[in-house]
Amino acid sequence: MRTSRIGYCVSVVGPGHGATVDAIDDAEAVGRLLAERGWITLCGGLAVGVMAAVARGASAAGGIVIGLLPGADRSDAAPELTAALATGLGESRNAVLISAADAVIGCGLSPGTASELALALRAGKATALVRPTREAAAFFRALAGEAPLYVAATPSEAVAWVARQLTSDLSGD
Amino acid sequence: MRTSRIGYCVSVVGPGHGATVDAIDDAEAVGRLLAERGWITLCGGLAVGVMAAVARGASAAGGIVIGLLPGADRSDAAPELTAALATGLGESRNAVLISAADAVIGCGLSPGTASELALALRAGKATALVRPTREAAAFFRALAGEAPLYVAATPSEAVAWVARQLTSDLSGD
Amino acid sequence: MRTSRIGYCVSVVGPGHGATVDAIDDAEAVGRLLAERGWITLCGGLAVGVMAAVARGASAAGGIVIGLLPGADRSDAAPELTAALATGLGESRNAVLISAADAVIGCGLSPGTASELALALRAGKATALVRPTREAAAFFRALAGEAPLYVAATPSEAVAWVARQLTSDLSGD
Amino acid sequence: MRTSRIGYCVSVVGPGHGATVDAIDDAEAVGRLLAERGWITLCGGLAVGVMAAVARGASAAGGIVIGLLPGADRSDAAPELTAALATGLGESRNAVLISAADAVIGCGLSPGTASELALALRAGKATALVRPTREAAAFFRALAGEAPLYVAATPSEAVAWVARQLTSDLSGD
Repeated sequence: MRTSRIGYCVSVVGPGHGATVDAIDDAEAVGRLLAERGWITLCGGLAVGVMAAVARGASAAGGIVIGLLPGADRSDAAPELTAALATGLGESRNAVLISAADAVIGCGLSPGTASELALALRAGKATALVRPTREAAAFFRALAGEAPLYVAATPSEAVAWVARQLTSDLSGD
Repeated sequence: MRTSRIGYCVSVVGPGHGATVDAIDDAEAVGRLLAERGWITLCGGLAVGVMAAVARGASAAGGIVIGLLPGADRSDAAPELTAALATGLGESRNAVLISAADAVIGCGLSPGTASELALALRAGKATALVRPTREAAAFFRALAGEAPLYVAATPSEAVAWVARQLTSDLSGD
Repeated sequence: MRTSRIGYCVSVVGPGHGATVDAIDDAEAVGRLLAERGWITLCGGLAVGVMAAVARGASAAGGIVIGLLPGADRSDAAPELTAALATGLGESRNAVLISAADAVIGCGLSPGTASELALALRAGKATALVRPTREAAAFFRALAGEAPLYVAATPSEAVAWVARQLTSDLSGD
Repeated sequence: MRTSRIGYCVSVVGPGHGATVDAIDDAEAVGRLLAERGWITLCGGLAVGVMAAVARGASAAGGIVIGLLPGADRSDAAPELTAALATGLGESRNAVLISAADAVIGCGLSPGTASELALALRAGKATALVRPTREAAAFFRALAGEAPLYVAATPSEAVAWVARQLTSDLSGD
């Protein structure tokens, strides 16, 4: 289904304001790991929380990171983004962030993040949660049905699992 | 904030395929109750599950019910809708369904439904869950923060709570 | 393709601020004529220009008129709307307004209006222009290709042509 | 308004199927010129017409080119894209393509292209048309009002004008 030369896109989702230190650390590590694999990182693009952290991590490792901003201008974009796309879609940009992804990795939880993870499961995309609370893990496991969901203890576990999922998709084509 | 003559819009969300009998019964009752109050019912518009049930209930009680369909044509619309709006937005129509609502009522749960409830909490809209599982109630309570969330035992409890929320908003203007 | 009981939806498009007196008069008449046929009128929903006029006309004739607002709240909605749906989509709501329509009628011209008329032609929807300038008529005729486009001298000519188009679609099913 | 390290994004719009040889040649040259300036090229992403040509040109010159696809998967993406973002938005992706751009360059004309150029003028973005027909140039000039519109005889004229517009915006901050 995917054309051969275009890079994989992995969306990293998580809270903006209110992100925990753990979520921010995890997101920065995830961004770095995605960049090291030569993949493209997608995120919500704002200069705060998990969005800013993943942009920082991917950028520091020389990767391409594209932010899909909710607003119509990029004044609030994370400065480390390769491209800051001001969608003007408001909250509907969450659905675009999931639609555009080959896989989704969640660091931390907020209502916006939950909406994205739920849409990822709905679309049957490979979805990894890094260090979720026990309650969140149970909820998303019950929600997932047959969608591929993985609860990871570390960023590298999450990225390694996504890699296996994407590779097995490819060989299954 | 709201202009005076336009009707309240309440979005009713829930599973399409895979909806339980309880969720379908609840949705039909919610639609009827919203119509009896003279409010406008919004839903996802498809001819299946909770979407079809709420359209049936609202329509039978003489109410206006507007469906926001994901696709670009209305061939799969519930026939009881007053208006079937084929948005062409795919999964992004979930965000529109929440944005357009004064309040949101959930009957049953699926990944799509979870994405809508999460967006409702994010926007701080009055959100009622009818007979959720204990696990889902706990998850959304933790997610809600200060957003107004109510766990209702019956459709009429949910609609009565929404009515109080909307009225208190109005008096607070 | 359309289910039998749901009403036809006709989108009326035109300038907000900067609408001419002619465009406003035409839009009000179009709204009235659509309501008299029992059809549902869709518009951009704002309390200004053609959007306000068509809401006024349809409402005065007892019709249902649904506004698709660009913003995330309805504080700027035309008060005569039956339902004011705050899409939160920004300019993307123009595409939804066209996607949701069985036919499109344009009164006056602005950049936003031109984007809507162009999308209507792209989708091959029945599209009528009421009293366009000679320049605009020539441009859209050249753009239309095989899409059904009609240049009407009056609102009633536009609505009568749309009626014939929708009826012939139906019989062709 | 723009943060300093993020690259300029220029959207190149034009027909897919039905693009003329001139439009395709122009788009490929525009893509190359944008890449040579170190800017990011945005396009509609499909493997046909102007979208494919601009991806080819930008890619050959070592630039980053991001495609915003209408559908929910990337099976129809131009293979030269750096990133193929399957928005799932249908025709609403046209509005996102304009919202995300600092400037817009049109090569050739179709209904979809016209919708994008009209939205660019509505947003007041720097908009250049490469070798439009006399009729199209006249139409968009009349539509533009005070929006910055330029009719270019060649791709390099278009890109040079856009460069001056973006630079003067920056100095005006």
